Amino acid sequence: MKNILGENEKIADENRKLFREKNVFVINLMGSPGSGKTTLLEKTLSKLAEKLKVAVIEGDLFTARDAERIERQKVPVVQINTAGGCHLDAAMVKRAAESLNLEELDLIIVENVGNLVCPAEFDVGENLKAVVLSITEGDDKPLKYPLIFKESAVAVLNKIDLIPFTNFNLEQARADLATIHPQIKIIETSCTKLTGLDDWCNFILENF
Amino acid sequence: MKNILGENEKIADENRKLFREKNVFVINLMGSPGSGKTTLLEKTLSKLAEKLKVAVIEGDLFTARDAERIERQKVPVVQINTAGGCHLDAAMVKRAAESLNLEELDLIIVENVGNLVCPAEFDVGENLKAVVLSITEGDDKPLKYPLIFKESAVAVLNKIDLIPFTNFNLEQARADLATIHPQIKIIETSCTKLTGLDDWCNFILENF
Repeated sequence: MKNILGENEKIADENRKLFREKNVFVINLMGSPGSGKTTLLEKTLSKLAEKLKVAVIEGDLFTARDAERIERQKVPVVQINTAGGCHLDAAMVKRAAESLNLEELDLIIVENVGNLVCPAEFDVGENLKAVVLSITEGDDKPLKYPLIFKESAVAVLNKIDLIPFTNFNLEQARADLATIHPQIKIIETSCTKLTGLDDWCNFILENF
Repeated sequence: MKNILGENEKIADENRKLFREKNVFVINLMGSPGSGKTTLLEKTLSKLAEKLKVAVIEGDLFTARDAERIERQKVPVVQINTAGGCHLDAAMVKRAAESLNLEELDLIIVENVGNLVCPAEFDVGENLKAVVLSITEGDDKPLKYPLIFKESAVAVLNKIDLIPFTNFNLEQARADLATIHPQIKIIETSCTKLTGLDDWCNFILENF
């Protein structure tokens, strides 16, 4: 395991060097299956495209469903199929990036495999990690899956419109996130009610 | 990876032999973080306890929160902390089972780590696998994460009460599940509205 992570780190550093040379900022977008990562991208890519040239790398075990959804947003997209693998690694992102024209890009968003555990352990050469937590997953998830929240610069609390129909305690979740990672930025979004999406886009533009 | 799985399979077979000798039926309960595995157990353990002597093995990366919730249901519970590991393996379940009195038990439910990918690859010596899919995760999950649905005898479509607030297409999900695994039993549940819980308990009693 240490060898695998060491080899991955080496390729991640090469990716980061390449992205810096080409002036491309890279976000590694993580979260559980169904937390709403693809929908968040669908709703914000056009907003971001007003300011930045964006591409997406889509990670999935199988199918090109998410890439097809992103393609409709008229941004370049590369699908990675891990064939059952539970996370993206730096070598996969390196190969995917080779089919993008980096000279013409400002930002790549890498949508990782839906998984709140393994993706947090594998640096892909990103500038920052972001985690999407659907409030339907429950407020105990930061304490139960701390690494991904420790690693991420921002936590997007998505599907916030469903909060009246759940027992999610927003105050508790915010307190737990602050304990695990005091500097983490917390953004509340709803992709159906279209709330918080400007906050998310502004966070990206400010960190860019 | 093949070596790890081969070694795991050996211990899983030993577990299965031991459980059969002791007349204990074992269910491996899997699903994404926040799909509602622990709440499903909370709501059904007392119903099952009328007919069977049940114990629970709780798998989590960190914390004993789920085990504490299960303890309140007055059934024996053993917590496994994987310390960041993304799934339970047969050796962990073997150690956990050693602290249970198997002679006095009819059924062990193993609640796996919240993860729709890795747990499906690791046999822990169970008699059957069950997967919980919250409808808030989206109807595309069976096709995107097929292995766990192929491996499971039953798919519990949980949080069905939230369907009016989502774009989840129940017909599509059922059709995709039937394509991936024609024999899979599909049970719709809501742990807040207390619907479908008898179906779930009856499924266990019929397969027992």
